Amino acid sequence: MTAFEELMEFQHETEALGQVAGRLGWDQETVMPRGAAAQRAEEIGALESVLHARRTDPRIGDWLAAIDDGRLDPVGAAKLRHIRRTYARATRLPEKLSAELARVTSRAQGIWAEARAADDMAHFLPVLEQVVRLKRQEAAALADGGDPYDALMDDFEPGATAAETGAMFRRMRDRLVMLRERIMGAGRGPAPLRGNFSEVGQLALAQQVAEHFGYDFRHGRLDKSVHPFTSGGGADVRITTRVVETEPFNCLYSTIHEVGHGCYEQNIDPAYALTPLGNGVSMGVHESQSRIYENQLGRSRPFTGWLFGRMNDVFGDAGAPDADAFHAAVNRVHSGFIRTEADEVHYNLHIMMRFDLERQLIGGSLEVADLEEAWNARFEHDFGVAVDRPSNGVLQDVHWSVGLFGYFPTYALGNVYAGCLNLALRAAVPDLDDQLARGHTEGATAWLKEHVQRHGGLYRPREVIERACGFAPNEGPLLDYLDAKFGALYGV
Amino acid sequence: MTAFEELMEFQHETEALGQVAGRLGWDQETVMPRGAAAQRAEEIGALESVLHARRTDPRIGDWLAAIDDGRLDPVGAAKLRHIRRTYARATRLPEKLSAELARVTSRAQGIWAEARAADDMAHFLPVLEQVVRLKRQEAAALADGGDPYDALMDDFEPGATAAETGAMFRRMRDRLVMLRERIMGAGRGPAPLRGNFSEVGQLALAQQVAEHFGYDFRHGRLDKSVHPFTSGGGADVRITTRVVETEPFNCLYSTIHEVGHGCYEQNIDPAYALTPLGNGVSMGVHESQSRIYENQLGRSRPFTGWLFGRMNDVFGDAGAPDADAFHAAVNRVHSGFIRTEADEVHYNLHIMMRFDLERQLIGGSLEVADLEEAWNARFEHDFGVAVDRPSNGVLQDVHWSVGLFGYFPTYALGNVYAGCLNLALRAAVPDLDDQLARGHTEGATAWLKEHVQRHGGLYRPREVIERACGFAPNEGPLLDYLDAKFGALYGV
Repeated sequence: MTAFEELMEFQHETEALGQVAGRLGWDQETVMPRGAAAQRAEEIGALESVLHARRTDPRIGDWLAAIDDGRLDPVGAAKLRHIRRTYARATRLPEKLSAELARVTSRAQGIWAEARAADDMAHFLPVLEQVVRLKRQEAAALADGGDPYDALMDDFEPGATAAETGAMFRRMRDRLVMLRERIMGAGRGPAPLRGNFSEVGQLALAQQVAEHFGYDFRHGRLDKSVHPFTSGGGADVRITTRVVETEPFNCLYSTIHEVGHGCYEQNIDPAYALTPLGNGVSMGVHESQSRIYENQLGRSRPFTGWLFGRMNDVFGDAGAPDADAFHAAVNRVHSGFIRTEADEVHYNLHIMMRFDLERQLIGGSLEVADLEEAWNARFEHDFGVAVDRPSNGVLQDVHWSVGLFGYFPTYALGNVYAGCLNLALRAAVPDLDDQLARGHTEGATAWLKEHVQRHGGLYRPREVIERACGFAPNEGPLLDYLDAKFGALYGV
Repeated sequence: MTAFEELMEFQHETEALGQVAGRLGWDQETVMPRGAAAQRAEEIGALESVLHARRTDPRIGDWLAAIDDGRLDPVGAAKLRHIRRTYARATRLPEKLSAELARVTSRAQGIWAEARAADDMAHFLPVLEQVVRLKRQEAAALADGGDPYDALMDDFEPGATAAETGAMFRRMRDRLVMLRERIMGAGRGPAPLRGNFSEVGQLALAQQVAEHFGYDFRHGRLDKSVHPFTSGGGADVRITTRVVETEPFNCLYSTIHEVGHGCYEQNIDPAYALTPLGNGVSMGVHESQSRIYENQLGRSRPFTGWLFGRMNDVFGDAGAPDADAFHAAVNRVHSGFIRTEADEVHYNLHIMMRFDLERQLIGGSLEVADLEEAWNARFEHDFGVAVDRPSNGVLQDVHWSVGLFGYFPTYALGNVYAGCLNLALRAAVPDLDDQLARGHTEGATAWLKEHVQRHGGLYRPREVIERACGFAPNEGPLLDYLDAKFGALYGV
């Protein structure tokens, strides 16, 4: 065997073990008995330690040194690009730092949950200070002289930089704040949905909608979990949702969102399975799929018209007098503290705030002790209301407790990419609205599969979007889409 | 750290990875999407390859050489005994043979399923010949000059020998055949249950019965699968059952059987978790727990009296006119071809037949080409009826296709152990029948936990039974129990 073949065989096994870790995570959030948590931590720890040893195995360095990338075909070269990047990152991190981060973040997550439940930021401060101190060290080690925040972002969005992302977010922020103010100034918005929608009915409809969007249940399943997520890759990609009987959009649009993630994974070229190309290429591109399924397709007037009919079929009463009122309820813009409950107008404002704050935390210009105050000041400016308590503010998200810095911006990048893809998709499929009005999403999903999803990790994140759209990704199409949609809905 | 401590730390991680493999197996049989099977094989293969490398890691040999077992406390010595045994077995097997066995048995299982579905033994013959050839090689490698069949049995029932087991089975066989003939000659037996019992009701009752037997749902769960099984250990022990709406005993007694396995695992001293003592000590002792829960307790007249009331509560009609008729239906003795559907009288006859045949196969006195004829002749002698087709005969069990030789006898050993434990239990808990009549099993389960289950792998298999009973395990109590119970039921 050549060095390339040996490396690929080794990588195949590592990828398969990575899938196993994914199964454990799914199990933990859906079916694991409550009393098994401590033992599960041991099981995951043992598997992670195997994976860590494989990812830093010196043989990878030897193989990489022996391979001339210039002689590889584009697929082989792309595989090598992923492996070189992952190996460089893994070997730059001192083992002791990795272990301490694992230990501290595992403890911090529990303390965060307690602090959020008690609305007590002081309880969370000391351990968050430890997390931030360790993440600063990690960022410095990974950055190798470059921007430390870039080094963290690179884990989730390879190639993205904080400077470019920050500049784009600044351009977006003004327009979004203005749009938000116009809408909120327009007086009382549309009525929310009314009624009680049985869990059985919601789950049955969610399954049907998932099938309509092309999610393949032969290679997946839909379960309930506290927070909806997508897990796994290749031939086994599972999604979850949640149910609130008075708020059926929670279940339905969580499902469509996860279906977007799930279809991306399911639609990757099977030839890439259990290779470095066998997963979605970045969090941002992943989020572009979940968001375009959820928003540009799922919350469009034609699709909600179809959904209105299905809601009437399943529940007898869709909770709105007609399809237009239903569409307005689906797209209701409302002030709120919580990111995960935010509408399309508010959502990116949440992200940009977190991006700026965590960039300052990692860069050292903001200390953990001052974080809450900074959060509250920024929130009041961008959202026009004062945070009433930490659980509605700085304590609302789990990310920082588990050391996820550099992840938040990918949510907004995903929205930006979705905006670009929507523009290109509508040019390519002129009768899309007619299709969606009949509940048919194949026109859209086939285009997304062909131009984005099937490529897996073959192209770089920005590259895959640019190839699909025919133009460099930028915030314009998303902002135009939001202005047009919500301008019309609110007459502003 | 001492060599002992280093070995224990290494072993802890191996045990945790073993649990992960168990979770994958559970997932595969209960919730895995149908189209994920091929990828799952890759995932399991990768994990098994990690486990194999750990089990044969030369550092284990170094640690074992450096440890003086004489200086260890009994718990430490027991741990070492398990590790020495497992390591010796793992390192005796040539890597090439292990790989070929894995490859051939994986293929053979699929061919067996096809052959059984088509009732075509000829289709299965060539691959079974390969399996037997490889198992003979494996047995010779493991036996290291000793009895090859003993070497295979040792994987499932450490310390058991084919000679002793065979002698005991011969003593049992005559009495069982006689009992069977007396019963079948007694004319028409009791009526089976009549009615249709909803799946929802059966599963609810199964859950309730599992709780009554002390199965802890905080550390377990009950799901459906094609074949009921128990999976996992320590803080996460899951059981499954199956449902046939016209035969509620299928679900209920499968559940009680798996509850016996599950409680054994759940009740092991938590100090042994993720050590070599943290699982049931052998298949035979495991089966003693599942069988005493299922038969000596669950099929007893007092407990079926309680169950009759619960069946009436749940289904409105228990399907029998009174508690005596219900008890007779639970314990109906009927001729049948299929081991897994056999009653207490027939069950061990199935096992003994397989034991004798596979011992001859491994020993070389029987060839695969002659297996079906040998099966059919023996069946007609012991069961009084002729096998009508291979799927009701030699093709009925999956075991041989996957290379499980030496496993079958542990089922009958478990029954023998259950007979011994039942005798000792009834001496220790004189009012057991009064308790069972009220649906209370705590008297029995507390005794079994204290005397058998909590010890995990601390004692050798026969030793744990002998310590619990106060006498050396033997077939007498089981045969006396069967004679008394079925003699009374059938008036013979």
